[in-house]
Amino acid sequence: MKIGILGTGDVGKALGKAFAALGHDVKMGARDVKNEKALAWEKETGPKASVGTFADAAGFGDILVLATLGVANESALEMAGPERFRGKVLIDATNPLDFSKGVPPTLAVSGNDSAGERVQKFLPGALVVKAFNTVGSAHMFRPGLPGGPPDMFICGNDVEAKKTVGGILREFGWGVVDVGGIESSRYLEAMCLVWVLFAFSTTPPTWNHAFKMLRK
Amino acid sequence: MKIGILGTGDVGKALGKAFAALGHDVKMGARDVKNEKALAWEKETGPKASVGTFADAAGFGDILVLATLGVANESALEMAGPERFRGKVLIDATNPLDFSKGVPPTLAVSGNDSAGERVQKFLPGALVVKAFNTVGSAHMFRPGLPGGPPDMFICGNDVEAKKTVGGILREFGWGVVDVGGIESSRYLEAMCLVWVLFAFSTTPPTWNHAFKMLRK
Repeated sequence: MKIGILGTGDVGKALGKAFAALGHDVKMGARDVKNEKALAWEKETGPKASVGTFADAAGFGDILVLATLGVANESALEMAGPERFRGKVLIDATNPLDFSKGVPPTLAVSGNDSAGERVQKFLPGALVVKAFNTVGSAHMFRPGLPGGPPDMFICGNDVEAKKTVGGILREFGWGVVDVGGIESSRYLEAMCLVWVLFAFSTTPPTWNHAFKMLRK
Repeated sequence: MKIGILGTGDVGKALGKAFAALGHDVKMGARDVKNEKALAWEKETGPKASVGTFADAAGFGDILVLATLGVANESALEMAGPERFRGKVLIDATNPLDFSKGVPPTLAVSGNDSAGERVQKFLPGALVVKAFNTVGSAHMFRPGLPGGPPDMFICGNDVEAKKTVGGILREFGWGVVDVGGIESSRYLEAMCLVWVLFAFSTTPPTWNHAFKMLRK
């Protein structure tokens, strides 16, 4: 498959590297085509990796990943060109974190709204699936946590798109829990904060943890 | 210890029975002293159990449990008498669930507010600890889930009160994850919805699941 990643932070780099490791061609998009983090990632990741603008990445991928700062999603999507997302699966891995009061962060969007819903509204033609937002970048691919596999909580309006993302997640080493339509992003983004606050419950914060749903 | 339970629903009955099974004296409070569910629970639970009004239960307990409907918390606490909570640990097991549009429910209070915060504001002298709100009543005591013990996520402003509740949770069969002050209730109440939506991801809904935080 061809994968387009929007964003050059830890999440974009980790997911891009994971897709490349599984044999997919991955283009990482940035605001600036000479983004240093993207170029370093390209070099490190090898021949399956390439870089470009947000628009390049969005046009390249059959499956797209939104890994921008949650509070800057719309601006990145506008630069990428909303028409390039039509009919494509878009994995929304973002959280609308507000660091204006320091750490731990709070949510800039919450209550009866969420980043996931805003992305879907901004791109009505895209098949948005919220995923990868309840764990840190270090454990997104092959999470080696005792008692695993952990579960990734996903939501989205398109059932086939969720099946596609579910298949990717299982290949990445996750169990999958589908919690409904994209409006459930409001709960999954809040759950991200539980993940973050768990990190801050130890000094110094530690980031090697992930949710699992025990069941019988 | 003496435990006062406010509420006669499944959560109040399950927690009341659990405390009695551990040898504590438990008084269940209701709006009406002749509440049939409370009387049935008393008979079923045995000599450690008694019933009364909300005020009776609040006055009786050294540790209190709020297990009312989340959207009716303030009215129950007003009837119980706010002065009876002063200096006491109050376990808030409620969620502000809105069933006005059917099932699955949504949250009547969310965003930068939560039932937990409202309870603490209504009872400034109480040591409110959010707990037992991310699992169903069937698995609150001795949760026998494969891969367990599951983790209970708690929050509250008083460190000693959280230690007390943490001890209770471990005795009940849970791991404990402390996610900060009472304002984190906004995230834990959203997480309840993830628990609920997981139930509705199967037909018919199933309720035998609980969160665990995998870690290394």
